[in-house]
This record gives sequence, C-alpha cells and structure tokens, in this order.
Amino acid sequence: MSFAFNAWYCAAFAHEVTHVPFMRRILNLPILLVRNEEGEVRAIGDRCPHRFAPLHRGVFDGVTIECPYHGLGFDLEGKCRLNPHGDGKIPGAAQVRSFPVRERDGVIWLWAGEPSQADPDDITPLQLVDRGDRRPVGGHLTMDVDYRLVLDNLMDLSHAMFLHAGTLAPERARRDATYDAQPDTIRVDAVMRDVSTPSSQLLFFHGERGDFHSRIEWHFPATLRQRLSMTDVGGEPGDGATTRNAHLITPETATSTHYFWLHSRNRLIEDDAIDAQTKTIITNAFTNEDEPMIAACQDYMDGEEFFSLQPVYLPTDFAATRCRRNLERRIAAEASAGAG
Amino acid sequence: MSFAFNAWYCAAFAHEVTHVPFMRRILNLPILLVRNEEGEVRAIGDRCPHRFAPLHRGVFDGVTIECPYHGLGFDLEGKCRLNPHGDGKIPGAAQVRSFPVRERDGVIWLWAGEPSQADPDDITPLQLVDRGDRRPVGGHLTMDVDYRLVLDNLMDLSHAMFLHAGTLAPERARRDATYDAQPDTIRVDAVMRDVSTPSSQLLFFHGERGDFHSRIEWHFPATLRQRLSMTDVGGEPGDGATTRNAHLITPETATSTHYFWLHSRNRLIEDDAIDAQTKTIITNAFTNEDEPMIAACQDYMDGEEFFSLQPVYLPTDFAATRCRRNLERRIAAEASAGAG
Amino acid sequence: MSFAFNAWYCAAFAHEVTHVPFMRRILNLPILLVRNEEGEVRAIGDRCPHRFAPLHRGVFDGVTIECPYHGLGFDLEGKCRLNPHGDGKIPGAAQVRSFPVRERDGVIWLWAGEPSQADPDDITPLQLVDRGDRRPVGGHLTMDVDYRLVLDNLMDLSHAMFLHAGTLAPERARRDATYDAQPDTIRVDAVMRDVSTPSSQLLFFHGERGDFHSRIEWHFPATLRQRLSMTDVGGEPGDGATTRNAHLITPETATSTHYFWLHSRNRLIEDDAIDAQTKTIITNAFTNEDEPMIAACQDYMDGEEFFSLQPVYLPTDFAATRCRRNLERRIAAEASAGAG
Repeated sequence: MSFAFNAWYCAAFAHEVTHVPFMRRILNLPILLVRNEEGEVRAIGDRCPHRFAPLHRGVFDGVTIECPYHGLGFDLEGKCRLNPHGDGKIPGAAQVRSFPVRERDGVIWLWAGEPSQADPDDITPLQLVDRGDRRPVGGHLTMDVDYRLVLDNLMDLSHAMFLHAGTLAPERARRDATYDAQPDTIRVDAVMRDVSTPSSQLLFFHGERGDFHSRIEWHFPATLRQRLSMTDVGGEPGDGATTRNAHLITPETATSTHYFWLHSRNRLIEDDAIDAQTKTIITNAFTNEDEPMIAACQDYMDGEEFFSLQPVYLPTDFAATRCRRNLERRIAAEASAGAG
Repeated sequence: MSFAFNAWYCAAFAHEVTHVPFMRRILNLPILLVRNEEGEVRAIGDRCPHRFAPLHRGVFDGVTIECPYHGLGFDLEGKCRLNPHGDGKIPGAAQVRSFPVRERDGVIWLWAGEPSQADPDDITPLQLVDRGDRRPVGGHLTMDVDYRLVLDNLMDLSHAMFLHAGTLAPERARRDATYDAQPDTIRVDAVMRDVSTPSSQLLFFHGERGDFHSRIEWHFPATLRQRLSMTDVGGEPGDGATTRNAHLITPETATSTHYFWLHSRNRLIEDDAIDAQTKTIITNAFTNEDEPMIAACQDYMDGEEFFSLQPVYLPTDFAATRCRRNLERRIAAEASAGAG
Repeated sequence: MSFAFNAWYCAAFAHEVTHVPFMRRILNLPILLVRNEEGEVRAIGDRCPHRFAPLHRGVFDGVTIECPYHGLGFDLEGKCRLNPHGDGKIPGAAQVRSFPVRERDGVIWLWAGEPSQADPDDITPLQLVDRGDRRPVGGHLTMDVDYRLVLDNLMDLSHAMFLHAGTLAPERARRDATYDAQPDTIRVDAVMRDVSTPSSQLLFFHGERGDFHSRIEWHFPATLRQRLSMTDVGGEPGDGATTRNAHLITPETATSTHYFWLHSRNRLIEDDAIDAQTKTIITNAFTNEDEPMIAACQDYMDGEEFFSLQPVYLPTDFAATRCRRNLERRIAAEASAGAG
C-alpha cells in the first residue's frame, strides 16, 4: 500500500459539495460526499454493504440515502435506518464507514484513517491572500499517475525552467536553493537573480526583469503551500508581485491522483482578467506540460518502485527524497499498527 | 473456475444460426455455430488445433469448414478431413471438440461439458405462451459482468421497485414473498396489493391499479422462467394480464455474460405495437438500469469473491444465496471429477 | 524473456532518422534515434537515469540532448556532460546505454545486447535489386502480436493461397516445398505449376498463367529475404517476373512487433505506377489479412506459450518450428550467460 491513511486530505473544494450526493474516490476508497440539512458536509463509504451498489446514485431526502438497488436507507453517519423488505429488521452489519471531515480555506478536508485519531488542528492552514468574497481561482485535475511522482515534481521546482520556461518560471538561469527540513514539513527556498519575468508574474509585475523568488513547503501528507515573488533586482521575497498558492495532492488510486490547486496574489486582487489569464496559464502548464511528463516517467518506470530503479541522486532531489522517505515511514508505521 | 460445464446453456436463438458459421464465446470457449445441409445445428470448437486460427472465418461448403489460415478442412463433428499440403496425411490430433446441441423453444441449447453426460431431458422447458407462427419477442445483450451477479439480480426481484419503478414493476410498496427451494430449482412468489399498474402491464391490462403478482424460478444452471400478473385487487396470479418470460443467462467469460430474454403474454397476443413497446421497455430496463447497476456493484467488489466480502444478508437474499451455493457445489463436484 | 538481445535488428529505415531525435521501442527498450552533426546515426537509451523522463522530448543542439524535465545534458554516447544545478557536479551513474548501430541497405541496424559482441559482419545483406537513386518501395507497420507468430506466418508461405489468394499468391493449388536448414538460416523453396498469375505479379508479368516460384530465407534473428518469380510453365526460378523482398521483424514489446518490409523487382524498375500499386497490395495484405489473422491466433492462445498448447504439426511447419527452436536456444544461452 502506498498511502498514509491517518492524515487529512483535500477531498473536494467546498463549493463542489451540495445537497446532491456525489462520489469521489480517495485513497482508492469510493466516498459519498453531500451536505446535510444544516449545510454541513458529510462523508460516508459509497459502497452499500448489502450488494455493493453505489449509494450516491440513490434518492437523498436531506436525511437518508436510499440505496438505488434494493432500497436500504442510510443516514449520514453511515448507519442503516430502513430496511423496506419483509419485517424490516436491520442487520447489525448494515452500515458503512463515516469519515471525519472539516471545511476550511474553501476546502473539504477528509480524514481517511482511524477516526479517533483525527485532530482538526493537524489540518495545514493554506495562508492564501484574503480575497474577501471573491470566488477563489483554482482547479481540479485528475492525473493518471502515482501521487508521489506529483510530489516529486513539486518538491523540485527547478524543473519549471525547463518544462514551464517563460510562463510559470523564468528561462534557464542560475538558481540557488536552500532547504529546511522538519519532521513533517520541508521547505525549499530558491532565487534566480536578474532574470526575465515569466508571463504568469508579468500579469501584475511592472518590470520585464528582476529577481524570481520561489518558496514551496510540503506538509504531511500532501499539502503544499507555495509563494512566488517577482521583485526588482535585490528585492526581498514576499515583496514585489507575489502569489500564494496551494497544491493539494490527494491519491485517487495507486496510479491516479487528484490535483487541487488554488491561487492568490498580493496585487490587483480584484482584476477578473488576471484571474482568468492565470487560470489559463496554470491549467495549460499542469495539463499539457506536467501531466504528460510525469505520465511518461511513470510509463518508463514500468511498474517498478521508484527507489528500486536506483535513480541518480542530485542535490536538488533533497526535498523530494525526504518527502518520500517520510511517507514511507508513516505508511510502514500504519501497517505495523494495523491501520488503514 | 466459476462455471458449471456439465449443463445446458442457451448458446443462441434458433433464428441466429444459419448456414453461415459464426462464433460465440460460451464459458470462455470460442464455439463455432452453424447449420448443416439438413438444417441441423452443429457446434464445434472454433480454434484450429494447428495454429489456433478462428475456423468460423473460413470457407464453409455445407459440409466442411476450411481453416482460413492454412486450409485444413474440418467436418461438423470437429474431425479434420482434409490436409491440402504435401502428401495430405492428417495427423490424429487434428480435431476440435464437438458440443452436443438441441433446438427447443426457439433456443439452441448447448452442453459445454462431458458429452456422454448430456441428457436432453435435462433441458428446462420455457413454458412460454404459444405465439403460433409469430416471431418471438426477445433480445440478446452482452453484459460486462460476472453471470452470478445477473442471477443475483433476477433472484431478488424486489430490486425492480427501486430500479424499474413504474415500468417493469410498481412503485415502492409492501411486497410479500415466499420461497420454494428444491435441489436444482428455486421458486420465488411475491405479491404487491393494490398498487399502480406498471407501464409494461398497462399495455394490455384494463385498470390503473390492482394486485401485482411475480413469480420467478431458477433452474440449474441459469435458466429462469418468470410469470408476472396484474390482476384486479384480490385476483389470482396467472389471471389478469399475465406475461410469461424467460431469462437465459450464459457466461461468456469470467467477467461477461450473455443475457437472452423472451417475452410472451396471455392477451392481445397478435398486437404488433405491444410487441414493439414491450421490447423497448425491457431493452431499456436491462441496458440502462440493470447492467449499469450490476457493473457498478462488480466494480466496487474490486475482483474479490462475493462471499469473501461478507455481504449483509437480508431475508430477500434467500433465493440468490441458495442459487450461488448450488452452483458452488456443482462446480466443486466437477473439479473433483476432473470435468470441464 | 522471449527476445534474443545479442543480434542485429532493423531499428528504422535510414530515411526515418534525422537530426530531430525520436523514440522507438525495440525489444521493450525505449531507444532514442538521431543523427549527429556528421550525419551518422546514434542510438542511446531514452530513459533519463535521474527521474526517468523521455530524453527524446528534450532540446537537441546537434551534440547534446537536454533532458526535458530537469535539464541534464547527455552526449550521443549516452554520457551526462552537463548538470545545470548547484555546483554542476555530475554523478558517475548519470549515463544511459549506447547501442551499436550500422546503416546498410537503407536500414538502420541496431545491436540490442552486449556491445563488445557486436560484429557488423553478422548483418544479413538484403540482396534487393538495385534501384539506383529511386526511393525504395516499403513500409513499416506495428502489429499487436508476438513477433514469433509473425515469423511463423512468413516461414510457412503456404498460407498465402488461403489468406492472400489471387493477390500475393495464386489460388489454392498443389504446392511443392523443399527445405534447407543451416544453423542460423532456413530456406524454403516452393513451386506451384501452371497456376493463374496473382495480381501482384501481373503488374509486370506478361501472361495470365505460369509457374509461381517462392523462396524465403530466415536469417537469425529476424531478417527474411524473399524471392518470388512468375515464369512461363517450366521456367526457372529467378527468371520471369521476379521480386526480391525483405521482411525485417523487430519485437517492439512481448506482444507487439515492428514489421519493416522492402520490395524490389527485376522489370519495369522505374515504373512509378507499379511501385504505388505494389505498395497498396502489400499494405492491404499485411494490414487487413495477416495482422487480423495473427492477432486472432494470439487471442485464442490466451497468453499460453505456443508449444505448451501442443499445436498439431504438419510437414509444412518444418521451417517455422526450426526457427522457433533456434530462437529458444539463443535466448536460453543468453540467459545462461547473463546477457540482455
């Protein structure tokens, strides 16, 4: 198993979850997401324990989901409350899992493991720039790759000057990176001096050249905060034109990954055109540049485990490697504890 | 292996088999079906024993099939009768299996196991209403699911008031079922009192409400006879507007199933419009309601065996469960005997 | 493993390989093919040893391929020459394989095994009719089948009077074949007397009937030379209207095969219309007749090894069987030696 279950994952954007149930597969578990009559999000296993039908296709009256196949009724804690057949007796085993969920920063966070260990204080705040009532700029892609390859991609942003040159990052140039590793967090700071402004920053930065500062932080299990600043030469990171972004990586299956992203910026916050152009640039980069590259790597790995292929190690792999090792330890610990 | 081979299966409707050979996969065996010069159906293995080419693509002269790859000629008992090469000698191993077949009730029945055990008296009569010379109303679908999930579906028709409410069955209402289990037969009788007439019965029943009587019988291995009656309240099953149907379930592969069905009724037998509307209603229900639901269940079973998933048992599962257990015993007995 | 690696295979037609890198999978190895500044072909492993990205998608300046993901630079011997990150140190393991290649007869020959054993004298000359400066008539197909089934097909050309009757071969008739087997070569000569001229020969043969002479030679591992002659009755093979063809069979994966073919003839060499018609006839035969038949056989083999299915042996199988046994011995010898 390649997942850590005792962890908070982004299951959906808050605006996706309504009073109409839908299913999303997370860590290979089919999960029904819906809001109850109070508007609170609930998440339960989508597989009926009777004949394994998908509950989300059933009728929902605000309180109870009716299984679409034989009509068992489940409440939003996952307990069967109605057997419409015969004497109506409800077998004790007639229930599905209920998953702890929290709504924060416009995101529905789901705890996929042992419910008693779920502590909402462990949810990583996204620290986006406050946009007031404006709808967030973001998107949700599903990539047909192992989620760890997506983390690798993000934890070594030096790839951007090759794969996204001129759009998300400057053209090839000297790039100095420093690393700060804590037990469940890794931060990478990098700077490129006196480079051409990439088009994504040019939307709200005044100059054609400057310093490009990049910070990305991984927080266990797969929450990434990013800060990109274009400043005048010699400027401080966080000044200038700065975006604060989140990359929320949620395994769908062993070989597919939900990629949720959110963008915010410190200037021209209310400019709809910049919102739209930013979304176009990012969607294009993720869909047409990152995913094909990651999928090609996965294809060439031919089903083998990453480290078994003895990848050549570069110093720029420090953060991605440490992130993988952290996940390995967590997953092994869960396996020992019998969780998941 | 999940099939009982020593059994009669529907291989095709009689009208499908002509003097032009065609292949149908049954119990994962590719089988060539054709009529000989006397019009009798013959069934032989479709895989040439020389280089494994599909014989049905070859030239058939009424007596001999010529392999389309290298020209070996096979008679309809499966014996090689011609080697067009060199000295023309025919190796003793140059033959394919021949399968016992019988044509009854408009159906070609095929015995997939040990030929010496094939007893045509074991073929279950379909007991349809006699339609004289009228072409039967029926159809053939291939569902991408394990055949046992299709049997489960049919042996618990309580699903119809959820999945086919208003068309094949009344809307949700009280439904009383009784069971009669014999060694190789299971019968389920059910009644719903004073309910709205489903559209399939409304085609030839006079009232908008009444009693809905449902009977279904499973006969080993996968022949199902069904009788549905809409009567006035308090009427007897078999009176009123009654359909007699057959559902003939033949495994294609471990994960796909031939579903042959036939419909007959006791009123307005010669009404072409009712024939056409019935076919539309049934085809829609099987294709757009049953198959997607069964396929979704199979998907959620994720390749696991049904009972290993510890399904919640309801009393309405009696017939389907007994049917599965009967098949398990038969299959185990064949495995012990080395058949198949 | 079903491949012999220590052997020369056709990797591409010479005209396919330019100064723009491209990837071709050969013996399941992704290989980058390109010409250097001197116009010489080079072949290196396409999988970057750092993160397994496809090198051929990178920027090539005539000397160095830049990995498209993180920018490592490789020369055309497969050695990493540039690390654009940090201190620029290049790890010793940062290299990919380099494959010996030779350009002959318009074909790029690649040695997939141990480079020290590569002897260009082992490349089989194709012995096509000299066409001067005229572009060769040929084609490249990828068939979704095990390459050994393609060799089987070619080493028993008796199939042509069933599968390609009237186009590539005469209609069904007596066909006398003789065999000459050497350690790494097998030759089959066959003649059909006084038969109708197939359409492919009718393009440049004067008569509607005659003798059809067929010769095919297999040379280890998968280079086939073919000579087909249509002569007056009683004529000598090689006289009359004669084509000299090559069939170059290169495994792509365990279940897919590159099929390169080349055609030449001894008459009307400069006739563009015959070139075009020949290409149409051959492409149609390979694509619409051979591949579907071979794929159907493979499908019916259901993943089993050929000999384990106990195929019926005919004398016409002599050459194909010997060819398979030769490959088995070679592959076993490589496995013993630890090659590949």
